[in-house]
Amino acid sequence: MTSSAHKLGELKIRLREVSDLNSAGAVLYWDQATYMPPGGAEARGRQVALMARIAQEKFIDPAVGKLLDDLQPLAESLPYDSDDASLIRVTRREYEKAVRIPPDFLALFSEHSSAGYQAWTEARPANNFKKTIPFLEKTLDLSRRLADFFPGYEHIADPLINFADYGMKTTTIRKIFSALSGRLVPLVQAITAQDPRDDSCLKQFFPEKEQLAFGEMVIKRFGFDFSRGRQDKTHHPFETRFSSGDVRIATRIQENDFGDGFFSTTHESGHALYEQGVDPALEGTPLAQGTSAALHESQSRTWENIVSRGRPFWEYFYPELQKTFPDQLGSVSLDTFYRAINRVSRSLIRTDADEVTYSLHVIIRFELELKMLEGALEVKDLPEAWNTAYLENLGIAPSKDSEGCMQDVHWFGGQIGGEFQGYALGNILSAQFYEEALKARPEIPLEISGGKFDALHGWLRENIYRHGSKFTAPELIERVTGKGMDIGPYIRYLRTKYGGLYRLP
Amino acid sequence: MTSSAHKLGELKIRLREVSDLNSAGAVLYWDQATYMPPGGAEARGRQVALMARIAQEKFIDPAVGKLLDDLQPLAESLPYDSDDASLIRVTRREYEKAVRIPPDFLALFSEHSSAGYQAWTEARPANNFKKTIPFLEKTLDLSRRLADFFPGYEHIADPLINFADYGMKTTTIRKIFSALSGRLVPLVQAITAQDPRDDSCLKQFFPEKEQLAFGEMVIKRFGFDFSRGRQDKTHHPFETRFSSGDVRIATRIQENDFGDGFFSTTHESGHALYEQGVDPALEGTPLAQGTSAALHESQSRTWENIVSRGRPFWEYFYPELQKTFPDQLGSVSLDTFYRAINRVSRSLIRTDADEVTYSLHVIIRFELELKMLEGALEVKDLPEAWNTAYLENLGIAPSKDSEGCMQDVHWFGGQIGGEFQGYALGNILSAQFYEEALKARPEIPLEISGGKFDALHGWLRENIYRHGSKFTAPELIERVTGKGMDIGPYIRYLRTKYGGLYRLP
Repeated sequence: MTSSAHKLGELKIRLREVSDLNSAGAVLYWDQATYMPPGGAEARGRQVALMARIAQEKFIDPAVGKLLDDLQPLAESLPYDSDDASLIRVTRREYEKAVRIPPDFLALFSEHSSAGYQAWTEARPANNFKKTIPFLEKTLDLSRRLADFFPGYEHIADPLINFADYGMKTTTIRKIFSALSGRLVPLVQAITAQDPRDDSCLKQFFPEKEQLAFGEMVIKRFGFDFSRGRQDKTHHPFETRFSSGDVRIATRIQENDFGDGFFSTTHESGHALYEQGVDPALEGTPLAQGTSAALHESQSRTWENIVSRGRPFWEYFYPELQKTFPDQLGSVSLDTFYRAINRVSRSLIRTDADEVTYSLHVIIRFELELKMLEGALEVKDLPEAWNTAYLENLGIAPSKDSEGCMQDVHWFGGQIGGEFQGYALGNILSAQFYEEALKARPEIPLEISGGKFDALHGWLRENIYRHGSKFTAPELIERVTGKGMDIGPYIRYLRTKYGGLYRLP
Repeated sequence: MTSSAHKLGELKIRLREVSDLNSAGAVLYWDQATYMPPGGAEARGRQVALMARIAQEKFIDPAVGKLLDDLQPLAESLPYDSDDASLIRVTRREYEKAVRIPPDFLALFSEHSSAGYQAWTEARPANNFKKTIPFLEKTLDLSRRLADFFPGYEHIADPLINFADYGMKTTTIRKIFSALSGRLVPLVQAITAQDPRDDSCLKQFFPEKEQLAFGEMVIKRFGFDFSRGRQDKTHHPFETRFSSGDVRIATRIQENDFGDGFFSTTHESGHALYEQGVDPALEGTPLAQGTSAALHESQSRTWENIVSRGRPFWEYFYPELQKTFPDQLGSVSLDTFYRAINRVSRSLIRTDADEVTYSLHVIIRFELELKMLEGALEVKDLPEAWNTAYLENLGIAPSKDSEGCMQDVHWFGGQIGGEFQGYALGNILSAQFYEEALKARPEIPLEISGGKFDALHGWLRENIYRHGSKFTAPELIERVTGKGMDIGPYIRYLRTKYGGLYRLP
């Protein structure tokens, strides 16, 4: 064996341990969010933190850096998109990111996040923003310090964005978001000026067991492999990966609202299809996962919105749904149901928002966090700025902060900056990729209307899923679409779809 | 803070990490045995092994040895039964055990165990003992080598027994088992010569959901705290502990056999009551768990057999059970049901055996593994020796090895020696402790017949559970009963109970 083959082997062994530790942490978290009794919480927090700490220690071991240095010539001698060159390139990038952040700072930040999260869980139901101000101020300070470990940035948010969406820049995203909101705001105004669509058919009693079974039948059709995954119940839906053979989703069922559980299931199944589709040869390395938050969200949005809120999908599945819930839906027409699941309204809560308004919720948060990072907005003035932005963009403002700037956990239990952009970028990318898929496989909509998903799933697996993190999001977008991120397809998608449901300008 | 207080603090921090790593491994195992999809198996094996390896590395760190040395004077200055003296004493014992076994040997043994287990899962259904011979021979060799890391033993099985049942010796156990089987064999002969009792009332259809609910209602009454634990379904019932606030059991339900699931639940709940009852002040240390396999089994047997196969228990709960299953049991009398759940028969399978024959199954295995370790029995001759021993002790012999020497996983997926004795010692101890409990709280049977368990549970918690591993099993037996292990109470218990069901000699 050559020396570099030997070194590559050693690198892979070390990375597999890091991956296994992260997976162990993920199992601990999954259990906490699904089955753990309340008494387990205290020790569990400690156990999860320990997994993260040991994984980090093993990853930033100087021996890893040495191996990466020694392997650089090998990486350069191999094709850019080969597994091994990609492994060395991406691992080096992650390594250089990881070694810049002192472990003590990470521990401090993580401790503060727990405290902030705890404060938020009490302050939000009490609608007491004031109580969270000192926490948020410290979070802002720590977020700035975190960014400052990566000097040379163009915008202070860039390093934070790079954690979740490597290769994206604040200025680019700002430009994209500005163009997008310029198109969305008039669309929302036009639609919400019309009579609201009736969605009462969704708000009947739908027993949990049948809801779960229907959702699982659907995602099995998508191609979700239940021999390599499962679905459980939780409070806040999520997807998680323990290995290429074990990718799980967790959903929430509300028995008085069919849409809540069903679209959570199809949303999370999109994340899971991405993870289940990663080439097993990449297992145990940093490449064995979706490449960025935005790319991941593009897939959850594809399966949730483009597919399972689409007309072709329900042409096949609505009769099935009626059979499952004959009393509730037997006399509700497909048209009525389709309009109900695609009802557009000015709303206050991001996670409940429809496809048309959703991105505006995200853009508002992105702009506010940039202003906080830039020093142009003080934490104490956040509620006012929030309400103003909602009035301007969505024509509605919350009467209390619990339904306003305190609704999302992100700023309170994480960092300020870098976490929201993916939600809207994902919408844009879902449509951009789908347009490409349609060019290559024009039969997709017809297949979907027959309850089949092979063409779409196959195209996504081939072009996106199997690569894992070999390519950055910008690289992958370029490879797949031949150009950069573009809001055109998303706007076209929305105008076509909602033009069939509402009168558009 | 004094230097020794500081050192004690540092020791506790290190031990808590070890404990958290072991807990993480336990969560990974629990998930594997309850919810994991088949695709997760390969990575999960690796992840579980990694947790064990890192826990071991952290535990045998020379810094731990140094701290223990430095703390020895402190331990000697404190009362023997104080938390801190016990912590230092027990940790030192475990440390000295752990450092003697080279990590490479452990890895080799663990790898071989996996291979042996795999071979067994295939060979057992095929009734192919021959195929397992090379594996068993290596297991025997490795078991001997494992024992040899602890030179100076009286019997080669002693070090192996000490892993699970610290402080017990082969010669002592042999003497006890010989006396026990001298009493049990004639009892079994006398009982099985009589007409078998009819247990067909248990073999009806009992829907899973109602079985689970009934079992959980019962163990909640025992005192199992569902805010600090839960029950799930699995193939092979077990109990596991992730922290003092999270102790779980997993059971198996057969819809055509009420006894299987119910007595698994009460059995495992006994293990769990022990773990839930450990003083929370011991959390995160080697003291925060039951003290030995035999002690643990004494508790599962207490709640399974003495309590939930007892007449007083069913005086209260049988009407409840009839309400739950009116079609199945409405016309079955309490007497008939009580005789059915206590039916004694010559049987081949240990895990299905009744109270009277059970210990004989264990004693047979114990003697056979001693002979293998002593070199008096070759692996290839095991089936013949097995069948002969069954004929002699139970008057029945298997017609195939899958129902004979291949029925239990222990030798195939673990070590040969040191793992079986606890099952029979537990029976003996359950009765010995129960006799003490009755002396102190004579109202126990009356309480139980009223569906209450406070007196028994309180006595066990006070005298056994809260101590965790502060005392060795022999120390604890002496503290609680004022003498050593004694088969007298167990024989008296069996003769009294079964004297009411059968004519005894």
